[in-house]
Parts: sequence; structure tokens; C-alpha cells
Amino acid sequence: MNTREMIESLKRRVLAARGEIPADIVLKGGDVVNLFSGEAKKGDVALYEGVIVGAGPGYRGKEEVDVAGKWIAPGLIDGHLHIESSMLIPSAIAQVLLLRGTTAIVADPHEIANVMGLSGIRFMLEDSEKIPFDLFFMAPSCVPATHLETNGARLGVKELKELRKEPRILGLAEMMNFPGVLAGDEEVLEKIIAFRDRAVDGHGPSLRGHDLQAYIAAGIRSDHETTELSEAAEKLESGMMIMIREGSSAKNLETLLPLVNDKNAHRFCFVSDDLNAEDIKKRGHLDFMIKRAIEMGMDPIIAIRMCTLNPAEYFGLRGKGAIAPGYDADLVILDDLEDFSVSSVYKGGRKIVEEGALILYPHRGESGFHRKDNLLNIRSITPKNFRIPCSNGKARIIEIVPGEIVTRVRYETPRSRGGFVVSDKESDILKLCVVERHRGSGRIGLGLVKGFGLNQGAMASSIAHDSHNIIAVGVSDEEIFRAVEELRLMGGGLAVICGEETLAKVPLPIGGLMSAEPVDRLLKQLKALNQSAVRLGCHIDNPFMALSFLALPVIPELKLTDRGLVDINRFEIVPLFCNA
Amino acid sequence: MNTREMIESLKRRVLAARGEIPADIVLKGGDVVNLFSGEAKKGDVALYEGVIVGAGPGYRGKEEVDVAGKWIAPGLIDGHLHIESSMLIPSAIAQVLLLRGTTAIVADPHEIANVMGLSGIRFMLEDSEKIPFDLFFMAPSCVPATHLETNGARLGVKELKELRKEPRILGLAEMMNFPGVLAGDEEVLEKIIAFRDRAVDGHGPSLRGHDLQAYIAAGIRSDHETTELSEAAEKLESGMMIMIREGSSAKNLETLLPLVNDKNAHRFCFVSDDLNAEDIKKRGHLDFMIKRAIEMGMDPIIAIRMCTLNPAEYFGLRGKGAIAPGYDADLVILDDLEDFSVSSVYKGGRKIVEEGALILYPHRGESGFHRKDNLLNIRSITPKNFRIPCSNGKARIIEIVPGEIVTRVRYETPRSRGGFVVSDKESDILKLCVVERHRGSGRIGLGLVKGFGLNQGAMASSIAHDSHNIIAVGVSDEEIFRAVEELRLMGGGLAVICGEETLAKVPLPIGGLMSAEPVDRLLKQLKALNQSAVRLGCHIDNPFMALSFLALPVIPELKLTDRGLVDINRFEIVPLFCNA
Repeated sequence: MNTREMIESLKRRVLAARGEIPADIVLKGGDVVNLFSGEAKKGDVALYEGVIVGAGPGYRGKEEVDVAGKWIAPGLIDGHLHIESSMLIPSAIAQVLLLRGTTAIVADPHEIANVMGLSGIRFMLEDSEKIPFDLFFMAPSCVPATHLETNGARLGVKELKELRKEPRILGLAEMMNFPGVLAGDEEVLEKIIAFRDRAVDGHGPSLRGHDLQAYIAAGIRSDHETTELSEAAEKLESGMMIMIREGSSAKNLETLLPLVNDKNAHRFCFVSDDLNAEDIKKRGHLDFMIKRAIEMGMDPIIAIRMCTLNPAEYFGLRGKGAIAPGYDADLVILDDLEDFSVSSVYKGGRKIVEEGALILYPHRGESGFHRKDNLLNIRSITPKNFRIPCSNGKARIIEIVPGEIVTRVRYETPRSRGGFVVSDKESDILKLCVVERHRGSGRIGLGLVKGFGLNQGAMASSIAHDSHNIIAVGVSDEEIFRAVEELRLMGGGLAVICGEETLAKVPLPIGGLMSAEPVDRLLKQLKALNQSAVRLGCHIDNPFMALSFLALPVIPELKLTDRGLVDINRFEIVPLFCNA
Repeated sequence: MNTREMIESLKRRVLAARGEIPADIVLKGGDVVNLFSGEAKKGDVALYEGVIVGAGPGYRGKEEVDVAGKWIAPGLIDGHLHIESSMLIPSAIAQVLLLRGTTAIVADPHEIANVMGLSGIRFMLEDSEKIPFDLFFMAPSCVPATHLETNGARLGVKELKELRKEPRILGLAEMMNFPGVLAGDEEVLEKIIAFRDRAVDGHGPSLRGHDLQAYIAAGIRSDHETTELSEAAEKLESGMMIMIREGSSAKNLETLLPLVNDKNAHRFCFVSDDLNAEDIKKRGHLDFMIKRAIEMGMDPIIAIRMCTLNPAEYFGLRGKGAIAPGYDADLVILDDLEDFSVSSVYKGGRKIVEEGALILYPHRGESGFHRKDNLLNIRSITPKNFRIPCSNGKARIIEIVPGEIVTRVRYETPRSRGGFVVSDKESDILKLCVVERHRGSGRIGLGLVKGFGLNQGAMASSIAHDSHNIIAVGVSDEEIFRAVEELRLMGGGLAVICGEETLAKVPLPIGGLMSAEPVDRLLKQLKALNQSAVRLGCHIDNPFMALSFLALPVIPELKLTDRGLVDINRFEIVPLFCNA
């Protein structure tokens, strides 16, 4: 809008607020959740041209909706999540989140950035344009995550400054490189400086004492990696916005909630960080956190404030997070406050959700994503590329810890045949490979993993944190090869192979991370995929998630990247065999 | 600082926060007021290069200060005041406020703007540079205040956009023209739009219901003109930051404080609006409000939050208003929390106040103000200019209501001599004149006032809200003339005349509003001035303040400007005689 249009719009808004012209919609007789007074109070809410123009009695509307007996709350805001964890593109995750009463998220697109850099983030921005949902982003601070792996792009200070210009990019995303901050790494500090007038999110698991003070003194203002109550208290006192996380894996709500009281409630948000599509669909999003918090004894108004006004204020989102004149008409109508059961959702003054269903959402057609961008760049390979020559001594074997993303290191002499290490079904020690897929370097990291339990076949994934190379585990080199080839054909995704057959696959053509399908199709595909893994003998929960974290070289104890095995404690590449 | 310097500075800060290099100062063993946790807790505070780098045990400093038994609070922030009301220039008021624990204010310079426009505001900015005190400003929204008077400058949208570029100008100052907002006045709305991403302060006395909703819907986000509890509750619920005011005249603390509780405390600030120098010096500033609030039963931490973290967040002042790493080292050390008795004050990491005295403050020398700017532009006059020709019928007489700025209208036949109206000491009906002083127009408004009680002489003031023409009251035209001439000679100020003698005068060479003297000299001058007014027979409290408000054409019932008598109810100029 130009100034002329803004003036005209504001003139009409004032007229509507004064009741001189009818509002578009008046929600009548509901209990309005007021985050300023901290109370809920019966009243009408008048919406006009996408904005709340008045709350109180006496408004007429072109449409008047009786919401007596229901509650009206602001649309929910998630201040920290990674969309890619859902394997849904922005316009698809928005549909699922809207059903849960969420109308805005602040996403860190660092997965897609690791694959495609700026163009990946631009895709996220474009795909989330013109949908009835607010998608804000933070500029990823740590791409690549480490020097021990090969990723697809590098976001330096120059690229971050480029991102800063996008109006929907609100600040600097979680600064995972806290050792870099503490060591005074100049590039790291320069990134923080570039965003010094914006939100700068933290990521400081177990950071305490002087190191915590230094991390905050450098300009970091939030944390969502807190897992202990006393740690949260220390971070709170030190000025961090505490983002209490309840994701698909990391769940901190029950531990941290006891810290919140009326006097410090302005310093907490609820966030999800990483949520898979099934959890959003079945368990819920922030609605679930609010409900749990209320069950645990929290005042419902305070619980709602955690994911409305508080994140809005933290991120400087004017006009969001509350019900008052001039605020965006992003509203959730609730059948019940304590249950936070969503009856309908308004976004920008229009009803989008009714009785658990989307009633108004633009048809997306072809996503803005271009097929040519998403081809995996893998150098031509054969099964021979996965051979591991035998060596004397014991091998370092990655041992999965069920349900966790940490691994243990285990020393054993692997089985071999003809001078090459082979998978050993009896001991459940299988070959694990990471194939570089961004630069066609031909680099393949080779190792061994214990814990998958496959009796046959192979599994491969183009989701492999944080660089998202291809990671594959399998009983034979041929099947591993076939699994990787299946991914190459799909342009990225997940696959389960048995012999010459592809038992199941989930194409993730967008960066090898996200599906082009809507949520229900994706969930069906994932279900079939997991059932196929069971058929191969794999009984761990969520085996593809476990697989995807075996490449993450910042979590102890032993991981595998395209550059080889990484000893996390030494933070360096180590050979497979101890005496090599 | 350029980026290189910022990086180096941040590196050093991180080292100091980690305790690897000593801090500049460590305050040891005090009780630290923590506005994030809502509690006070014993701890050390380490200051380095003007910033708090750490709070907690184990810091060493080049200087270590034992503050055991004392409290450490953030420096206080006043979110709304008019410096000109103190008659002190910015660098002088800062000295007095620092003694009270205030380290930052957000001032609306609309008095000087009415006299000198942008150059007046630039003076305020320049005079407050390089002092150990943060002086932020809001861009005055209503200059001139009305079309019924002549002021010295006009701030249109263009000028306001110019001001927006100044880093210390935080937003749009109180939008006094609420009728303009409600009527959809385009220039008014365009001013709001120009500051839509900043703080936009309100001024909505008694505004309720749909008009209040409309005023807020237009983009106004705060109010400091609330005088009733139910009015404050309505404004709070409607999303306004409630600035509870306790000035020299308007005092709303006791009425409004009962509304504040732990759940809504984030929506209130303490402000002073208009404070004269004597009150600051004797009663105090925000320290007084905190103390009174605690006496009334408020939690001290919440009371402190009202004038630290809350205004900092409302105005987007990052790094201000709390004690945490990365925050500015603006601190108040208190002997007692409940009394809020200031022991010492640190600004930007340096001790400025110790035992009630400024110990570090730059010598200002000549203020940046240029003498040539401040000459009053009055067309040459003689006593004859103050003649009022007689007319039939009764005259509209302004009647002062003691202690208030409203006036009543009174209809009486004035005394006359030789065809001209003259002052009537017996009935206490005196001549009142407003001499236009900005444009040399020669315009003089003439009227009559009841309530000053002068037996002889005249008083004149170049402070006359809101346009600050010369206002004078007196027994004879000669003495009125002499009083105006005295002001002309001083380049503005206040004067008391008796016959041919000047009994007392206070030069206000800066725009005719502010003194070039430090506070103690000014207070001495003002005391002598008021004593002289008593000698003339004037027994009302603060007669020069009463005089200055007789020209304010937005407060009922009858006022006088250079354009003539203003009937406020009709909002138009009316003749002195009813049947004229």
C-alpha cells in the first residue's frame, strides 16, 4: 500500500471502530481472552479489513457470529521451529497448524539452507507468500554447521545481510556455535553484530556460569535448549527469553513449567523446535502445550500468553499476539478454554477453519520450486564404492542409544570376507555409509553401526543432519547401492530396499528434505515406509529419524559424515580401525 | 564504531564475561533487583566498557566495590515528560534527575518545537549529547496545537519524517489532537502512519467506548492522561500502555495504582509529564513514585519495573531497563529498597552520583544554543497597544479556578475610563494581554481576568501554552507594557514589574522557555519572583504557572490567545463584549 491507500484505509478503520460504518464481522457474546488485563471477559469483537477495530458492546457487522459460550483467543505463535522436520513445505505445514489454532510461526530454515543456501530460503519465503498464515523466518546462523562434513552452501556475513533485507526475516536464528561465541570467533561475532537490533536466538544446552554470561553478553537473547529447572532459572535471571520446548523428540514442558509464575511469565514462550507431521496431526502443536500446562495448574490466560503476546513482543511483531483495536484479526474460537479445543480460526479477518476442517485455503498448484534445483549431485557410483578394506585391530562402531540422538562408541573386530569388512547380522553390526550429495565430490564416509537390527535389505535417507548428505544402512553393498540409487532417482527422499525390490519410498523432492504432497498423503507414505523397515527386522522406534541423526557431528559420541567417522569428544575425523 | 571496532569490543566483552580478563568494576555482595525473575537476589555485578558483562559469583575487577547491605537496581527511565516544564535545559535537568536515580528519559519537546520548530528540537538533541544521561525524544505530533493561536513553527509530515532519521527520536509524541484522529483528519493520520513501526504515544483524557477503540485502532499505543480507575481499566483492556503520571500538577498515582496486579504489571509505566524544578529537587522524580507505590502496598520489584523494563520494552530500548549481561551499565545503588533511597548512580559503567552529589559531569561551557535564535520577534509597541475600547454590554471575563488549569467564564460590565476599559482592583478584574512574539505580526489579544488579586504592577511570561507568546497581566497599560519590554530585553523569561521598577525577573533565553542557569540559581530566581508577585498582592499558588495556562485554547472554558478570546466550547474566537 502506498501512503494514500494507507490513509484511506486508516480513515475507514476509524469509522468502523467508531461504529459509523458496519464492521465486516462481529463475533458476539464470547469470552475474550485479554492478555493485557490478564483476564477473560465477555464482549463483542469487531473485525474490519483484516484488523480488529473494536472490542466491547454496540458493534454492528455485515456478518454477525454468535459465539456465546465460546472463548476468543489470539491466534497462536510458535517462536521457534524447523519446518523441514515435518517434511512438509511451508504452505502445507501451515494447513495442519491452522487446524490447531496456530496462525503464525517463526521458522529457522537451516536444514534447507544447508542444502541449497539462499535459494532454499527464498523457496521457503515464496512458498509461504499469499497464504492465510504468517510465516516469519530467522536467518540461519550456522551454515555449514561444522567443518567435518560437506554441505551444499555457506551462509557468511554477506549472505546474512542479504537475508536481513527480507521483511519476513526477523533476526538471527539459533546460534548453535556457542563454542565459537565463547572463543571470540570473529565471523560468529560479526553475524551477531549484523543483527544487533533484532532478535538473536540462542542454543546453549547446559550452558551455565561465566560461559552463559559471556554467551548472553555477546548479544544472544533467548534459549530453547534448556532441559533442567535450575538451568532455566539461571538463564531466566540472566535475561534470556526462555523458550520452553515440546517437540517430537525433545520434551521439556513438564520439567520447566514449575519455574513460571505471574511475576516472571513475561519471559517465557512455548515452542516446538522439531515436530514431525504425525505428531502435529495427532497430538497437536501449541494447543497441546497450552492444554498440558493448564492440566499442570497454570492459569489459562498465562498459558495462552506464552504463545501469543510473549513471542510477538520478543520478535517485535507489532499488531500480533493480542485482541485489541489495531491488532491483526488472527483469532481462535475455542469450545473450551481449559481443553483449548479449537472450534474455528480466523486469519486476517477471514474464517479459515471451521469444525476441524480448513474451509478457505488457496490451491497452491505447482510449488514455486523448480525441479532442476533439486537433483542430487552424486558422482556415479557402483556397489564397490561401499567396500571397506579390512585392517588389523578393532573397529570403532557407532552404537545407537534407543530413543536418543547421542550414540556410544563400541570397539569390536568386525566380520570380514575376502579382505573387506561386511555386515554381521548375528551381532547386528551393519555397514553405514554417508554419500556426499551436494557437490558431486564422490566422497563417501564408511562405518559400522549397531542397533538397527536389519536381517536383510537397506534403508537410505537424504535427510541427514545437519548437512543432509545421503545416509544409508544395510546388510549388503548391493542393497545399500540400490537404496542410494533409488534416492537419486527420486531427487531425494527415504527408501527401504530388499534385494532387488523397493519395498517403500517417500519422495522428498524439495531439497531432499520436504515432500511435495499434502500431509495426509505424506503420512500414508511414511506409515508404509516404517512398516517396510519392520519387515526388514528393524524394531527401533522411528528408524529413519535415528538414521538421520547418525550424521550429526555435534552430538556425542561417534558419528559418520561424508568425510568419515567423527569422534565428537575430539571433534575430529578418526579412522574406522583403531590402530590404522 | 565501525564493524571492526564492534568485533574487537565484543571480543573483549566476551573475555570479561568469561572472567578471563578483569572487569572494570565489580559491585560485590549487593542484592540485585532482577526484573526477569521478579525477585532480588544476592550477587556480584561485573561492569566492563560501559556494559554489564556478568552477574553472579567469581568476577574480579580492576575496581571492586563492596555494596553488601545495599540494593542494585537498573537506572530509572521516565517514558514521558516535557523538559521545558522544568525551565532547565536538557543537560541541566539531567543533573537533577541523576541524583534521583534516573538515567534515561523520553521527552516530548513540543514546547520548544512550538517556538522554534526543528531547530529547537535540534538544540535539545545537541545539548543532551555527550552527557552521562540518555535523553531520547519523541517527535511532537501537534505543532501548532490549534489554529486559534500563532506559534513559531509548524511540524508537518515532512518535518516529522526528517526527525524520524535521528537515532534518538523514538517515535511520535502524544497525539493530543484526538478529535482529529476521530474525524479522520488526513494530516493527522499521515503522521501516525509515518511512525507506524515505532512507539506512538496517546493523549486521550476521558476517552471511552467506541471513540477510545477508534483512537487505538488508528495506531495509538499509550496514554498518560487517565485520571479515573475505570477509565484506566478500559484503556488497559484495549491494549494501551498505561503511563501512570505524577507530575507537579496532575497527580494520578494514588487513583490508578490499585489497578495494577502481577498479571497486568507489564502494561504500566510511571511517568512525570510535567515537573517543575523545585518538585524534582525537593520531592523527587520516579524515585518518589516508586516509594509511594511501595507505601501503598506494591511489590518493590514490580514498582521498579514500571520505570525500567516496561518503558524500555515499550520504546524498544534494547539493552536498557534491566541488570543482565549485555545491558548498559546504568545502575542505581540503594541504601534501602522500600525507601528507594539512592546511594550512588552508575551511568555507562561510571559512577556519576555518590552520597547525593554529582561527582562526574562534564562542564558544559556555552550551550550549543545561539543567541541570535532566541530574540523575541515582537513588533514595536507602546502602552497604547494595550488599550481596549469600551463597548456596550457585558464583557466575557476569564475567571481563574484556583489550583486548576480550567477557567470559568463570567459576564460583567468592566470599569472604563475615557472610553477605554481599565483594570479594576476592587473587583479584581485585570487586563490580560497576549502579545504575538514569533512572527512580528503585531497581533495582541486583549481580555480581562479575575483571580490574580494584584493591587499594583504587572507580571509577564514568555511561557504561555501551547504557542508561548507573551502573556501579561497588570493593573495599568504602562506596567503591562514595561513587563513585556522587560521580557523582550531578556530574550524571554518571567518578570514582575511595579511602577517603573522591575521587582524580579527570570531570564529564559532559550526559546523564552528555558534558563541557561543550573538548577540552584534558577530556583533562587524563581523564589524571588514569586515573592515579588506576593508583594503585588497576588496570593494564588504558583501565579506564573496559572498565567501560562490562560493562553491554552484546548482547556475549558475561556482563554486568550494572540488572536483574541477563545470560547473553548465553541472552539472559536469570540469578542470581548457579548453584544459586539
